[in-house]
Amino acid sequence: MADVGQVLELAAIDGKTVLTPEQKAALVTSLKNKLEGLVAQHTDMLENLTPKVRKRVDVLRDIQTKHDELEAKLIEERAALETKYQKLYEPLYSKRYDIVTGVAEVDGITKGGDETLVDQKEKGVPDFWLNAMKNNEVLAEEIRKRDEEALKYLRNIKWCKTDNPQGFKIEFSFDTNPFFKNSVLIKTYHMIDGDEPILEKAIGTEIEWYPGKCLTQKVVEKKPKKGSKDTKPIIKTEDCESFFNFFSPPQVPDNDEEIDEDTAEQLQEQMEQDYDIGSTIRDKIIPHAVSWFTGEAQDEDYDSTILEDDLNSSDDDEDDEEDE
Amino acid sequence: MADVGQVLELAAIDGKTVLTPEQKAALVTSLKNKLEGLVAQHTDMLENLTPKVRKRVDVLRDIQTKHDELEAKLIEERAALETKYQKLYEPLYSKRYDIVTGVAEVDGITKGGDETLVDQKEKGVPDFWLNAMKNNEVLAEEIRKRDEEALKYLRNIKWCKTDNPQGFKIEFSFDTNPFFKNSVLIKTYHMIDGDEPILEKAIGTEIEWYPGKCLTQKVVEKKPKKGSKDTKPIIKTEDCESFFNFFSPPQVPDNDEEIDEDTAEQLQEQMEQDYDIGSTIRDKIIPHAVSWFTGEAQDEDYDSTILEDDLNSSDDDEDDEEDE
Repeated sequence: MADVGQVLELAAIDGKTVLTPEQKAALVTSLKNKLEGLVAQHTDMLENLTPKVRKRVDVLRDIQTKHDELEAKLIEERAALETKYQKLYEPLYSKRYDIVTGVAEVDGITKGGDETLVDQKEKGVPDFWLNAMKNNEVLAEEIRKRDEEALKYLRNIKWCKTDNPQGFKIEFSFDTNPFFKNSVLIKTYHMIDGDEPILEKAIGTEIEWYPGKCLTQKVVEKKPKKGSKDTKPIIKTEDCESFFNFFSPPQVPDNDEEIDEDTAEQLQEQMEQDYDIGSTIRDKIIPHAVSWFTGEAQDEDYDSTILEDDLNSSDDDEDDEEDE
Repeated sequence: MADVGQVLELAAIDGKTVLTPEQKAALVTSLKNKLEGLVAQHTDMLENLTPKVRKRVDVLRDIQTKHDELEAKLIEERAALETKYQKLYEPLYSKRYDIVTGVAEVDGITKGGDETLVDQKEKGVPDFWLNAMKNNEVLAEEIRKRDEEALKYLRNIKWCKTDNPQGFKIEFSFDTNPFFKNSVLIKTYHMIDGDEPILEKAIGTEIEWYPGKCLTQKVVEKKPKKGSKDTKPIIKTEDCESFFNFFSPPQVPDNDEEIDEDTAEQLQEQMEQDYDIGSTIRDKIIPHAVSWFTGEAQDEDYDSTILEDDLNSSDDDEDDEEDE
């Protein structure tokens, strides 16, 4: 899908939406000073040119303006093209939804008047989205054994662009299930749309877990400390790995100053990984869900993946163990 | 320029073009076995479905095929759109070239019959490309003080797509200069065009340095070892950092098996950095050279960059020292 060289940069960690009023004021002052400095520097640069060269640069700037006007049209036309095709895909996604969920039956299967339990069990295509996601390497790493039962209730995954703030959202709709109350879980990405799109922040639906059903926490029993009067084991809940952590994306903390470099680097990595999962679902799973379900979608990058395996064999062995 | 989420993956290190015949044979066998395994697995998956579900999946596969045909058209139309605009930019780039090199004079500057030395010195826009590149952070890190003298001779930078093998090339044309004989230095990127473009390898022109003028090596004097009969200092040449190393990109070694994980990771990083420089020149410098030259191009990502600075202050201090 991606054009050669259209590189997405996730370099910036933008905390401006979580700043205190004092920090905001300080930031505005700092920005103002720095911008003034930049304008001055830029003016200096032009003023240091000899009059003849300055005249030539002025003409060059007009040429640049003409280029940038054309480029803006290209960006507009490209967005219109994407929108046009998203609309053409829409009826195909609807048909897919109907068949997967059993809303519609395909030709050649007669629908009996009285449905047996077996018919109910093989309504539509069972575990369609779970299996599609499990066949993708990036997502397989996120899905724990415990998650699978809940992901069987997935009815559909859709995405769309958002304006104000710019970005996109991914919508997961679920059948009534014993794990959580929500019928829709949404993940939203806010992007800063510059020369390269930059991730500003990600937001997930808060999941309303039923008691004892939370998949992102586990109950652990700990022996009391030696010498303690109490001999009963201590029962604690601990955060644990789960696909559903996707809906609790990493947050940029309130106070920038308290972040040290290691924490910032870790945060950056977490945000990149979170974005990687989101864009895999948007760009790979949603458009090619059937090919992922059947396993056909894996073939494409196969050649280069093998060569990569040879180079990083021990890495991959670890992954294999995780998958089993 | 880049559309949201069009992520370029540089994950694969593909060594197939540098394999020995034995390795090729082994690779073909390995590929064949793995592909057979994959086909078997995929067939299994479909065969394990109940007849009704299997029928539904067959209809889903037809829907997927229709989607993929539409998607192929989108990719085609998008490429045509890019080509159309590249052609519209062409005359603007030509005008820019004429003014920068002094081939054409702008209105309002009268060309005297006898040119003085001063006129010669301020022909066109001196140091145009050097200053444009130095104002970009990624490239500023690559340009050493020693490189600047040579980069003043840059007349133009152009790029174009390539077919067979697919990819793109960047062409740097130079005035006659005291550093090297070549008038054009070319960097070519071969890409594997799959679902996501993957860098296969990069190739650079071999630079024909004049004696004693090589910028990618430096002469160092070393004291002879203690107790050595010879008391004269030993004169050695050592590789050193230089922008011109861009034309000697990292090579995937002949024998995959001898690469350990650390070396592979390092190679991957070097290839990513090399690609980053190439795509910065292609996507930023060439289309917006005038804005980079005047310093106006920096403003765009300014906001988020400041916030990033706050988070990684010590990192940036190091960079600042480097720049001075």
